[in-house]
Parts: sequence; C-alpha cells; structure tokens
Amino acid sequence: MAEAIAQQLIDTLAERSLTLATAETDTGGLIGHWITDIAGCSRVWIGGASPYHNYPKIDLIGVSRDLLREHGSVSEEAAVAMARGVRDTLNADIGVAETGITGPTGGSESRPVGTVWMACVGPGDRVYAERQVWNSDREGNKRLTAVRCVELVLEAAASSANT
Amino acid sequence: MAEAIAQQLIDTLAERSLTLATAETDTGGLIGHWITDIAGCSRVWIGGASPYHNYPKIDLIGVSRDLLREHGSVSEEAAVAMARGVRDTLNADIGVAETGITGPTGGSESRPVGTVWMACVGPGDRVYAERQVWNSDREGNKRLTAVRCVELVLEAAASSANT
Repeated sequence: MAEAIAQQLIDTLAERSLTLATAETDTGGLIGHWITDIAGCSRVWIGGASPYHNYPKIDLIGVSRDLLREHGSVSEEAAVAMARGVRDTLNADIGVAETGITGPTGGSESRPVGTVWMACVGPGDRVYAERQVWNSDREGNKRLTAVRCVELVLEAAASSANT
Repeated sequence: MAEAIAQQLIDTLAERSLTLATAETDTGGLIGHWITDIAGCSRVWIGGASPYHNYPKIDLIGVSRDLLREHGSVSEEAAVAMARGVRDTLNADIGVAETGITGPTGGSESRPVGTVWMACVGPGDRVYAERQVWNSDREGNKRLTAVRCVELVLEAAASSANT
C-alpha cells in the first residue's frame, strides 16, 4: 500500500508539471521507494542519489568539499548544497535533500542523535531549509524525515503556483 | 524491524571488509532503505543512485548513451553497466543494479511486465547477471527484485572469499 503522502506528492507535482530529484542520506532511499510504489511516478520523479558517505556527496551531486569541511555534513549548508546539487545534476525543477544523525550513536552536544537538516530548492531557486531533532528510534527518525521532506516539496510546489 | 537479509548483507560484507554501492531504478531506493535501517551500515555501504529516468543513468553513474540506445534500459547490458558504473563512481568493491518493468503497464512481448535485469559486479570485475520475470503486483515485484539483488551481492561476496 503506497504512502498517501507520496500519492499526494505525485499528483501535486504532475498537476503543476514540476519534476523532482531527491538526495537521501539517513533515509537511504525511503522517499524514492515510496515514490516508485506509485505507477506513473516517472512523470514527476527523475531519480535520486543516496550519498551515504561524504565523497559521493561530492562526486555524485557536486557538493563542495570545502563546504563539507567547513560546515560538516549535518548542516544547513550541506543540506541546501545537496538539494541544489541533485536538482541541477538531474535537471529537475525541485531538489530535496536531508542529512542527519539517525542514531542510536553518533550524536554530540551540538548535534544530538535525531538531528536532521532538510532542504528543498524549488523553482526560481527558492530555498526552504529546516532543522529538526527527532525523538524516535532509528527507523522512526528515518520515517519522520522522509515525511517532512515530502511536505517541504509540497510547500515549495504550492508556493511556486502562487508566483 | 530491519529486514533479516539486509542484516546478513551488512554482517557478511563487514566480515570480508567489502564495500557496496547500489543502483536502483524499479526499487527506487528500497535496498538503501533496508540497509540504512541497520546501525553501523556505513562500514559497508558507500551509497547509491536511483536513476529512474534514462539520462541520470548516463550523468550520475556513467552508463553509455549508445549502450542504452542499442540495448534499451531493460537489458543485461544496461544492468551490468549500471552495476559497474555505480561501483566505479562510488569507489566501492561491489556494485549491484537492477532495471526492469514493475507494471502495471509498460510491458511488451519481449519484455513483459515483471521483467527485470539484475547485475552485480564484484571484486576482480566478476559479473553476475540475471533476468527474472516476476509475477506479483508492482510492490511485490519491487520487493522480489530487492531481495534477489541482495542475494546476488551475498553470492559475489562468498565467491570472493573463495579466491
């Protein structure tokens, strides 16, 4: 049974003739999995990248090595660069990306387990970025991130229709 | 609850110090999702690409445009090129890829709905390729493909230990 929010995503973007590219790290491909449960998703989804290690963020979708060195991979700057990078590399209208610490280990005082930065770069290069600190387990955190990323895309699409 | 076969994948590759890169089309990221349900998967998984349209197969992981034109994207040649391409682009030991027709439409006489080509390129450039014609629905076909891809990697890893 496909996720209702994924169906809403496909319908909304198709209605507006907008295409999407995704860059997933923590979620590993969960958003793409939801999308491909829906027949006809190719109208909307160009594809995605799951650069789990840092260097595919650089090699696959063109995130700058210096940016990752300066800000870290779990940062607003990294999330925005990933969203813009995957959008531009795949020539889509909208790019969405997330990068965080799903746990159960790997957290720090400034970036506790559950921290995730999500970003969406929409038409006209409008940027939506958001930090959350989820409080679920690893699988729950992944799911929360995936849902919120889809919501960010829906918000970007709605806003693009108003301009 | 993480998939048992994904846990087996991580344990087996970690034991042999082998890394993996994935290229998913039909499954959209399902394999990466299973992998990232497991804490510590970064020991093994470098990341992946989900080139749903054809041109990200070319732009993201270096599949040749002429190859896709000559053989089509649902072919042994495309699956092998995707597996080798994602392995080389992400500098992993093993690359696994799949490309098919999940349905419910899009089939033809020579490539009916449910057809999928899967390929794994392992250490020493050994190639494992396999065609299946699944008989489930879209979600079922995706799941069967993801499981069989993981099995191909396990076979490649086992064989690499014997050489």
